[in-house]
Amino acid sequence: MTKAECRNKLLEVGTQLFAERGLHGVSIRELSQSAEASISMISYYFGGKEGLYSAVLKEQFACFDEIEEIRQQGTDPVAMIEAYIRWTLQRHRNNPYLLRFYTSELTNPTPYFHSIVSPAIGKVIGILADIVEDGIRQGRFRKDVNAVNAVLALAGMVNYYVLSTLATEHLITHSPDLDEQLVHQYLAIFMGGIMSAEPQAEITAASGSADE
Amino acid sequence: MTKAECRNKLLEVGTQLFAERGLHGVSIRELSQSAEASISMISYYFGGKEGLYSAVLKEQFACFDEIEEIRQQGTDPVAMIEAYIRWTLQRHRNNPYLLRFYTSELTNPTPYFHSIVSPAIGKVIGILADIVEDGIRQGRFRKDVNAVNAVLALAGMVNYYVLSTLATEHLITHSPDLDEQLVHQYLAIFMGGIMSAEPQAEITAASGSADE
Repeated sequence: MTKAECRNKLLEVGTQLFAERGLHGVSIRELSQSAEASISMISYYFGGKEGLYSAVLKEQFACFDEIEEIRQQGTDPVAMIEAYIRWTLQRHRNNPYLLRFYTSELTNPTPYFHSIVSPAIGKVIGILADIVEDGIRQGRFRKDVNAVNAVLALAGMVNYYVLSTLATEHLITHSPDLDEQLVHQYLAIFMGGIMSAEPQAEITAASGSADE
Repeated sequence: MTKAECRNKLLEVGTQLFAERGLHGVSIRELSQSAEASISMISYYFGGKEGLYSAVLKEQFACFDEIEEIRQQGTDPVAMIEAYIRWTLQRHRNNPYLLRFYTSELTNPTPYFHSIVSPAIGKVIGILADIVEDGIRQGRFRKDVNAVNAVLALAGMVNYYVLSTLATEHLITHSPDLDEQLVHQYLAIFMGGIMSAEPQAEITAASGSADE
């Protein structure tokens, strides 16, 4: 193994083992054996097990920065919310371990929660809340909508859809082929829920065709 | 300790340790030491560590059966959905460990997922989907609503609100005092999202007063 290969192998093995058993459930010996790298290599590249965990976590949550692209894409809050729903499904599709780190850090935070996870989630929620507040100012969303609570509802819809997969696969198919349908269904529910009476008819008409 | 006290102590200690570190992250020795009970008592009452974990899991998910009371309470789908939102917040308030078992079993299922967790979640989602389908048949909800996807959106809104607490406490207060406001906000969003045009005005008027 070259040095770069060794570092990548440690990240890969660490991602899988930490996702399955958490920071405290994995020993440095297991990491070293699974990656076929010496313990001193873990120290050299990451400063130890905690450093490797923190590097894995940074890699998992790096994609949250892409919310900036959604913010910069325009001024239409509905289009930005649609982009958020699609992007969130895509983040989980691209990264099957993300939800494990996400939920385990939120329910049993490690010392890296406050430096890595909380800022990543807080940034996305904050930007979405700004988008919803813009929509309220533009008169497109209801004045009585609480922006942060509404955004948590939106994030919850999309993340829980993915989270619930194992418990609901007898009820529906969670095939990625249906993701685009789901984007439009969830956009219709959320928009119906927060839009002012007038523009709401507009979005229902615009997105209705994609519903089942 | 009496026998009943010993059994309860083991359940209490097991709930806390398993919630924090999962089935595989806790040894039978730690359980025995933390509960001040012998390993043979764990075997006697639960047949071993796995049996104790399974008993803890059953206790955690027993409250999901209360969905039957919501189903039996009437025929108004909107009132039933409101009751579901309130009950779900309450389940988390009453039981601070529930979300850890819930998310860890969905992302890293143990052998007890299929016998305990999946049936409990599947039952709630199934009954809610029946309620939404009744609403569609009654003409109150839109015909193009996919009942299961809509119900996952609803469950996601409420569960994620609680799950996100640690990452969003700088943005909003998650005080239980605001739960009743949240019930009405989330009911308004969900109902706005799935109701037919006519009854929607009705629900907005009925619940609007509780929004901020």
